[in-house]
Amino acid sequence: MTSKKLSYGDYLELDKILDSQTLQSKKNGNIVHDEMLFIIIHQAYELWFKQILHELDSIIEMFKDNYVEEENTGLVVSRLGRIIEIQKLLIDQVSILETMTPMDFLEFRDLLSPASGFQSIQFRKIENKLGMKPDKRVRFGKQRYDQYLSKQDRKAALNSENSASLFMLLEDWLERTPFLQFEEFNFWESYKEAVERMINNDKELIYNNNSIDDTAKEVSLKNYDVIKNTYEALFDEKKYIKLLDEGHRRLSQKATLAALFIKLYRDEPVLQLPHRLLTQLVDIDQLLTSWRYRHSLLVFRMIGVKIGTGGSAGHGYLKKTAEKHSIFRDISNLSTYIIPRSSLPKLPIKLKKELGFFYVHGK
Amino acid sequence: MTSKKLSYGDYLELDKILDSQTLQSKKNGNIVHDEMLFIIIHQAYELWFKQILHELDSIIEMFKDNYVEEENTGLVVSRLGRIIEIQKLLIDQVSILETMTPMDFLEFRDLLSPASGFQSIQFRKIENKLGMKPDKRVRFGKQRYDQYLSKQDRKAALNSENSASLFMLLEDWLERTPFLQFEEFNFWESYKEAVERMINNDKELIYNNNSIDDTAKEVSLKNYDVIKNTYEALFDEKKYIKLLDEGHRRLSQKATLAALFIKLYRDEPVLQLPHRLLTQLVDIDQLLTSWRYRHSLLVFRMIGVKIGTGGSAGHGYLKKTAEKHSIFRDISNLSTYIIPRSSLPKLPIKLKKELGFFYVHGK
Amino acid sequence: MTSKKLSYGDYLELDKILDSQTLQSKKNGNIVHDEMLFIIIHQAYELWFKQILHELDSIIEMFKDNYVEEENTGLVVSRLGRIIEIQKLLIDQVSILETMTPMDFLEFRDLLSPASGFQSIQFRKIENKLGMKPDKRVRFGKQRYDQYLSKQDRKAALNSENSASLFMLLEDWLERTPFLQFEEFNFWESYKEAVERMINNDKELIYNNNSIDDTAKEVSLKNYDVIKNTYEALFDEKKYIKLLDEGHRRLSQKATLAALFIKLYRDEPVLQLPHRLLTQLVDIDQLLTSWRYRHSLLVFRMIGVKIGTGGSAGHGYLKKTAEKHSIFRDISNLSTYIIPRSSLPKLPIKLKKELGFFYVHGK
Amino acid sequence: MTSKKLSYGDYLELDKILDSQTLQSKKNGNIVHDEMLFIIIHQAYELWFKQILHELDSIIEMFKDNYVEEENTGLVVSRLGRIIEIQKLLIDQVSILETMTPMDFLEFRDLLSPASGFQSIQFRKIENKLGMKPDKRVRFGKQRYDQYLSKQDRKAALNSENSASLFMLLEDWLERTPFLQFEEFNFWESYKEAVERMINNDKELIYNNNSIDDTAKEVSLKNYDVIKNTYEALFDEKKYIKLLDEGHRRLSQKATLAALFIKLYRDEPVLQLPHRLLTQLVDIDQLLTSWRYRHSLLVFRMIGVKIGTGGSAGHGYLKKTAEKHSIFRDISNLSTYIIPRSSLPKLPIKLKKELGFFYVHGK
Repeated sequence: MTSKKLSYGDYLELDKILDSQTLQSKKNGNIVHDEMLFIIIHQAYELWFKQILHELDSIIEMFKDNYVEEENTGLVVSRLGRIIEIQKLLIDQVSILETMTPMDFLEFRDLLSPASGFQSIQFRKIENKLGMKPDKRVRFGKQRYDQYLSKQDRKAALNSENSASLFMLLEDWLERTPFLQFEEFNFWESYKEAVERMINNDKELIYNNNSIDDTAKEVSLKNYDVIKNTYEALFDEKKYIKLLDEGHRRLSQKATLAALFIKLYRDEPVLQLPHRLLTQLVDIDQLLTSWRYRHSLLVFRMIGVKIGTGGSAGHGYLKKTAEKHSIFRDISNLSTYIIPRSSLPKLPIKLKKELGFFYVHGK
Repeated sequence: MTSKKLSYGDYLELDKILDSQTLQSKKNGNIVHDEMLFIIIHQAYELWFKQILHELDSIIEMFKDNYVEEENTGLVVSRLGRIIEIQKLLIDQVSILETMTPMDFLEFRDLLSPASGFQSIQFRKIENKLGMKPDKRVRFGKQRYDQYLSKQDRKAALNSENSASLFMLLEDWLERTPFLQFEEFNFWESYKEAVERMINNDKELIYNNNSIDDTAKEVSLKNYDVIKNTYEALFDEKKYIKLLDEGHRRLSQKATLAALFIKLYRDEPVLQLPHRLLTQLVDIDQLLTSWRYRHSLLVFRMIGVKIGTGGSAGHGYLKKTAEKHSIFRDISNLSTYIIPRSSLPKLPIKLKKELGFFYVHGK
Repeated sequence: MTSKKLSYGDYLELDKILDSQTLQSKKNGNIVHDEMLFIIIHQAYELWFKQILHELDSIIEMFKDNYVEEENTGLVVSRLGRIIEIQKLLIDQVSILETMTPMDFLEFRDLLSPASGFQSIQFRKIENKLGMKPDKRVRFGKQRYDQYLSKQDRKAALNSENSASLFMLLEDWLERTPFLQFEEFNFWESYKEAVERMINNDKELIYNNNSIDDTAKEVSLKNYDVIKNTYEALFDEKKYIKLLDEGHRRLSQKATLAALFIKLYRDEPVLQLPHRLLTQLVDIDQLLTSWRYRHSLLVFRMIGVKIGTGGSAGHGYLKKTAEKHSIFRDISNLSTYIIPRSSLPKLPIKLKKELGFFYVHGK
Repeated sequence: MTSKKLSYGDYLELDKILDSQTLQSKKNGNIVHDEMLFIIIHQAYELWFKQILHELDSIIEMFKDNYVEEENTGLVVSRLGRIIEIQKLLIDQVSILETMTPMDFLEFRDLLSPASGFQSIQFRKIENKLGMKPDKRVRFGKQRYDQYLSKQDRKAALNSENSASLFMLLEDWLERTPFLQFEEFNFWESYKEAVERMINNDKELIYNNNSIDDTAKEVSLKNYDVIKNTYEALFDEKKYIKLLDEGHRRLSQKATLAALFIKLYRDEPVLQLPHRLLTQLVDIDQLLTSWRYRHSLLVFRMIGVKIGTGGSAGHGYLKKTAEKHSIFRDISNLSTYIIPRSSLPKLPIKLKKELGFFYVHGK
């Protein structure tokens, strides 16, 4: 093979990729076999983070560019789908690290201090670009996460914090959804009635259920009052703003109603891809949570309840973030207001046509 | 084929198995296609629960029968391994139920009331036989879980509660572990020193880490005091009993020390299988947790924050049990006291011999 | 709980489900612990087969009923999606059976003779309803597969063979696809040119590639002649019929062209679901193959190259069926004729409109 | 953070790792979004290949160093276990590449020519170090695989071909297994009788099975004659050498008998780890096969039956290698000679002691 032709190794720049594993334990004069795994698995994570950012950036760009063209929705959905596949791999990848025993890990852990996964700027960017709110982050001490980063990385982190996130662009896009206001538009009323019927029906089932005791009944019935309240707030601007102000909601009322409409009428042709998109965002959220949870279990296996290598984030911290760092919670919370298919108000014919294919309705 | 010969269908009693799917929605005059899936997936779950109980019972029996014969340890490990494979399948199985939309589920949900997965007697038996403590269960209302069961099932549940659980038998078995008291047995002292060295070293790393602020340092250092305290209690009977009394520990001191010994010297031939056994119990615990967590996410997707079909256990309840219902926590907590391989005190030669193969040492 | 209320156990008919495990080894007076697993895993398989048939029947029904309504395409896609999830589980389920050692299996294998998985009528129905051609089946001896079935099962098998299969209904549906003949319809010409360009380009790359030797080049170039021939047959009725007659193709020319059109213009709104449907059928085929392959590996682990319990189908037979029993091969073979996105001929504006949403084009 | 302290990014050399993705399509002036994925996934593969080689080298080293110390067997088993976990990940990783459509792949495929995965020197090393025989490789053209490599890589490939492979070292190790020749050693005789009984029993079952026809019976019975022949060769040096010469066997007779002994008496303490080791080697073989198979399916989806980018190895080649490139086949073939647990000849007490723990037998 002549030197001018592209070779596999040159294309992948394997000279650099495969020459980037320097064991601290070797520098220290006492090679620990398992440190190689520790380096390589984290490099693999970072490669995948780069790919996630590549997809995320392109998605954000498409959302910015007056997005709504159908081909783009398809593309956004397929790229979110790729992110999801990568996330699943990242979770599975933990199994490989679990083949390292705690005793072997402790053999080189101290040599890494104060380096810490906490310092992965790519991971922070992913969180920020998805729309993690800085003030919702679980803190360690009084410091913000970016205090652990180098100057250059801190700048990049703040940059990604201040740019338009997927959450914000999604909110805009949802607010721009047509169809919500329609001429003879009274089916929101029918929907409201259907939800009320469902809630009352549920309450009655509880009330008449002799297999649970009075305390349990009372708790359940109270819970339903809360559900009813938040649901009524969906249609009442003042109440909704209160929920926003108190931090119970983050997504605007208009966007929330649009998302609800999409969830309810997901089977209409024009809403199928938007519905998949919403579902994917909830999936991405849950997979991030699963990854954190799996990661925290691993850290627990490795060092117990002690601290992490950066002098900072051990099992406890990771467990907390797994529980709290949800971004698209307002979307996933809509499940509470889903009603049985048969109770779904029929759409006005004219609207139904708007949501369909030209091929069927255009003639 | 003559009628006397065993056929596949007869062997598996498929006439009964495949004739046990009666749709409530059909009785109700309005077949809901997806109800079939709901029935079949739960029947598959119950079949696997039966298999888990089959393995669990045989394991408990072997533990009772003066167990320690080596062949049996191997058998116990392989049967626990089977339970683990089944648990993984049960978790994956959730993906199939996720293909049902909430709107379709709500179409037949009310018809099932007050039936509820809460009433699975086999699942309760599994929990009890593993060693779930009745008073540790998350309650719904003031009632115990068995109040939701039929008379006959309640009796079976209480029965399994009162029999020797795997937890109890494991405790006995650990307490019987030889090797802990040994003639010139002073390596527990070396081990104590090694842990202290490790903890002090960790504290120093925190103290000198300029990348975290003072508040964070203080929190971390306090955390280490707790670690040191509980670790000292391992070797101090009075302190340990206090931990037991306050509910911080459940496993006896003697059993805990034996488990720690096994974890530390897992590479010695005679300890390899016991170590796998301990690891498997922690895995079973974690997989139960994952299953509950995955299940609670599914319920949330299906009905949001509303209650479950039995008028009882919705997403919130399941999430709580996922967090609290740990059985072998004292075993998994030992990770905190693992030390680097190189700090591990050398075993006395005589003891090392005791832990080895006859083939090597017997001559 | 009063007896009239639906309980969990009654709903699932657990009295029957959990009372259908009769160990032959027990009858024989010598219980083999692992036989329980063998029974339960096969019962779980049969439960899932019932679910697959439930979905398949409903899909076939929708295809028959003049299908093309958009909501139904969505429903078909989601039910095929469910079948795929079930198939993945069936494959994973093999891991559980792998926890049984060959030595333990051989302990009760002979007691099962001549019962054999070969006799699963539900599995045969699945194959037939998908569209397996009876004369394409790998034979054991000179007999057809149905000779191993009971009279009643044989009738059911032949019945499913003779009913309209998914393959046939798909062919009809593809043939009915509109859009293929269009007024100024000359883009098939541009497509032909694009394929020719691609093939010639590939041939040139081979020709100029100095890293492979002459023999290899010759083989490759000949291969490309075959590709070119079959591709030309796509547009030439006589040639195509010859391919059909010789058994190289099964799907009609018209249906094949429609499928190709869908694959090429998958991004157009009205073609997105049809494209997913085609992809799913190929997935179902491949998952069936994977299942057979995984199954054959297991059988090999259990009994080596010996025969199966029914005196018939061992590892060799299963391996053969894994390789040959493909149903939707003509669909998957289309990959050869996919061209780069940028070479895709632009659709006439009028046609593009036909393929879009009313919402966009209808005004 | 001061510059002297180790940071996460420095430790992982992320400046190099994340700066090694140069899109050919960008050089070409027309960026193809999906090329990034193509690069990153292959880099991830190469990182994991490096890790596999790291483990493999250490295992080979341990085998060379007069290996038999028990601790090392444990270490070998845990490192093979890690390779297996990595292999599973490599297979799952294919799902991510499947999110790329063929149309997008074809957009940049030609730019990569003649680079080809065929040129991965690390993968060749893995094959060679495991023990792939050069003359068993599926050829493309008349050339050996190393003709596709650069001069430097070719040298490395030949080097790995000529060093002691895991297969060879395993053979040595098995041949050194003690216990096979034992004083009153007549249980091989009992074993032979047990196998003969099993084979005769199987033949009788076939002979009396009325549900299969005469042709099938004949084929089966002939098959059993082959089984009997090869099994007899196990104990007959001349016959065995003939099998070796004709290429039906690769592992020496002595090593094969030792492997069989280990498989049969796997429950004896001293044989448990050796048995896991043998099982793992078979697993590694099968996972390599699965990876090739999954890879060939992907290539088929991407380019159909056309050739690969290197002008060489398309779907057909990969499919062939998936079927033929088995290394530890002689080990997996032993399944044919496994007998029911209850037929296993009892070991002489003295030998049983040799295989047990000192703790039990040493006193």
